[in-house]
Amino acid sequence: MKALENAIVKHGKVLSDTVLKVDSFLNHQIDPELMQQIGEEFAVHFQKAGVTKILTLESSGIAPSVMAGLQLKVPVVFARKKKSLTLKDELYLAEVYSFTKKETNEISISKDYISSNDIVLIIDDFLANGQAVLGLMEITKQTGASLAGVGIVIEKGFQNGAKLIRDKNIPLKSLAIIDSLANGQITFRKEGSLS
Amino acid sequence: MKALENAIVKHGKVLSDTVLKVDSFLNHQIDPELMQQIGEEFAVHFQKAGVTKILTLESSGIAPSVMAGLQLKVPVVFARKKKSLTLKDELYLAEVYSFTKKETNEISISKDYISSNDIVLIIDDFLANGQAVLGLMEITKQTGASLAGVGIVIEKGFQNGAKLIRDKNIPLKSLAIIDSLANGQITFRKEGSLS
Repeated sequence: MKALENAIVKHGKVLSDTVLKVDSFLNHQIDPELMQQIGEEFAVHFQKAGVTKILTLESSGIAPSVMAGLQLKVPVVFARKKKSLTLKDELYLAEVYSFTKKETNEISISKDYISSNDIVLIIDDFLANGQAVLGLMEITKQTGASLAGVGIVIEKGFQNGAKLIRDKNIPLKSLAIIDSLANGQITFRKEGSLS
Repeated sequence: MKALENAIVKHGKVLSDTVLKVDSFLNHQIDPELMQQIGEEFAVHFQKAGVTKILTLESSGIAPSVMAGLQLKVPVVFARKKKSLTLKDELYLAEVYSFTKKETNEISISKDYISSNDIVLIIDDFLANGQAVLGLMEITKQTGASLAGVGIVIEKGFQNGAKLIRDKNIPLKSLAIIDSLANGQITFRKEGSLS
């Protein structure tokens, strides 16, 4: 997605060979017009999948998901990163290990909002080691819903998250795939090239 | 705002005389079309205020803020509820006491995204005791920016947050004001009536 790649090149900060900071338009400050374009891209890609719910993770997944939900005319459910005050038996739960923070978080959703009749599209801002998406997939599995696929804003193609998802035969659409951050240079994978 | 009041009546759950749960369209599951209408209402109300940034708080403030930002064509910055891994001197910080959870959280934004040249609109999902909004106002003050006003999706008119804001002569727009939740009944304040 060209507008997204342009934003990454213009505003992204390469902090190391593995860390890209996009706080200025996605993770902290949010560019609403870019989010709208991102939502449209996801909607076009998954429009024939019969999606009935979008599932994402607070906080950075919310903006792109709400814009995709607007286009697909479906509700968005965001998983919380720590359990709420309600009873655990009202929740679907999964554990997510963060390689960056070296800690395990529990993510959860209420049992009220996704059912076995749903067709779920998972959306998240970043795909690196894939732990967050695997957690959302685990929650989807617990609901009994079908999984239409996974939509990612920025995939780090040099980490193994995408492989973990594709190995399960889950359709994956990443709007920008970064193949390398070596030497402070952002190298995108060309559309249509093999992973 | 009629569509919002209708959603509150249809989907809101009155848990006590002071607690209204709107998890089904605002706080956990999100209705993107309603968020779009909410964003338009905020944009119309604050369109002449010269807003250059919207400031909100993760996670439930993000969806209405991004929709307002789309209409006003300005970026959204969401404050985080705990400090990130970056150095504290790169952050504007405020403390927010939660009467519900009986705990104090530190909220913060990076110094990179709001400057003294900005005109800030604060948006949040709920206004009850006003502590979150006061924290966002404290952060805005630290940035040196002007404050255009505060936009709230649902105000609990029977708690004192609105008074705390109006006493500082800050323009406040709440899209729905609930005057009472007594006996499981939701009573809205009529538009135009005095608080």
